Amino acid sequence: MNDDVVVLRYGHRPGRDDRMTTHVGLTARALGADRVILPDNAGQSAETIRDITDRFGGPFAVELRDDQRALTRDWAGTVVHLTMYGERVQDVEAEIRADSVDDGTPLLVVVGGEKVPFDFYDEADYNVGVTNQPHSEVAGLAVFLDRLFEGEELDREWANAEQVVVPQETGKRVVDPEAADAERVGDGDEDRETET
Amino acid sequence: MNDDVVVLRYGHRPGRDDRMTTHVGLTARALGADRVILPDNAGQSAETIRDITDRFGGPFAVELRDDQRALTRDWAGTVVHLTMYGERVQDVEAEIRADSVDDGTPLLVVVGGEKVPFDFYDEADYNVGVTNQPHSEVAGLAVFLDRLFEGEELDREWANAEQVVVPQETGKRVVDPEAADAERVGDGDEDRETET
Repeated sequence: MNDDVVVLRYGHRPGRDDRMTTHVGLTARALGADRVILPDNAGQSAETIRDITDRFGGPFAVELRDDQRALTRDWAGTVVHLTMYGERVQDVEAEIRADSVDDGTPLLVVVGGEKVPFDFYDEADYNVGVTNQPHSEVAGLAVFLDRLFEGEELDREWANAEQVVVPQETGKRVVDPEAADAERVGDGDEDRETET
Repeated sequence: MNDDVVVLRYGHRPGRDDRMTTHVGLTARALGADRVILPDNAGQSAETIRDITDRFGGPFAVELRDDQRALTRDWAGTVVHLTMYGERVQDVEAEIRADSVDDGTPLLVVVGGEKVPFDFYDEADYNVGVTNQPHSEVAGLAVFLDRLFEGEELDREWANAEQVVVPQETGKRVVDPEAADAERVGDGDEDRETET
């Protein structure tokens, strides 16, 4: 997994966008990004994402920044802007992967919130559409990351988790990390499991 | 593309869930499902999804149902419940594809909203986690559908659209469907384009 895949949530309307912005951040974390940057008025979302990271593990960083525009302009690496008007993800994903993850160049993935300024389309190295249909910035980010990492992000291991979900055919099973480790080597200790 | 991949949004809190439920429906449409079923109190989301379908094409159906539980119980086909507690998507996606899309058996993909009743885990044929991390039901649905259809959904063509987005390296280009058809056969008519 690359050390420098960063998701930028561009724009945020407090109240109305809280849940979507939180989902953008949690999706970035779950699907292999190293960091999410939110507008500085999205403190509530940042708190939720940090809380999930404390409980379910990291490393994953959450930053609040008021200079979002400067950040994209000065990014020392590749900038991908996810937009339904962009090139088809299936046509450009291999090139983007080669330009970022494969050679360690930092990748900034911009997810629009409020209306993205028009000149932003020119500044981005790639404008990419996960379909050219209107749907969800969260869905677009998820599919983009899963394709960028070719599914390897699903096997990621988490450090410093307080709790670990053990995949199950049915029901819910949450254990402490030591118990999860024991199970992975085929030595599960049922007594240590903690159901939620 | 299969004729019977249906997404069920289980539970909805009017107001609080409107945007998420709308995104579930739009993601289902954009990423290859044939139909979305929403709880009958999600009329506002249904209206938005129908409006997008009228403008950007179909076929895609939106239904409101008050008997969601009966629907899952009586489903004549395969039921997949997306949950962070389920089996890893990368472990079961091939089997689910064989049990549904490949042989034409109708597939119901359940996306939780409010707390899903516990016995639901037993009733589903598959409980599937797109990671075992907390993130977003919209992200989980998106990755699940992209994997179910092995990316073929991205090449879907749309019928009866009033407008078509033409993938672009930069900027936004929206044309009427006849112009889009002409472009596909290499005979674009710039005069007919309508920028938004």
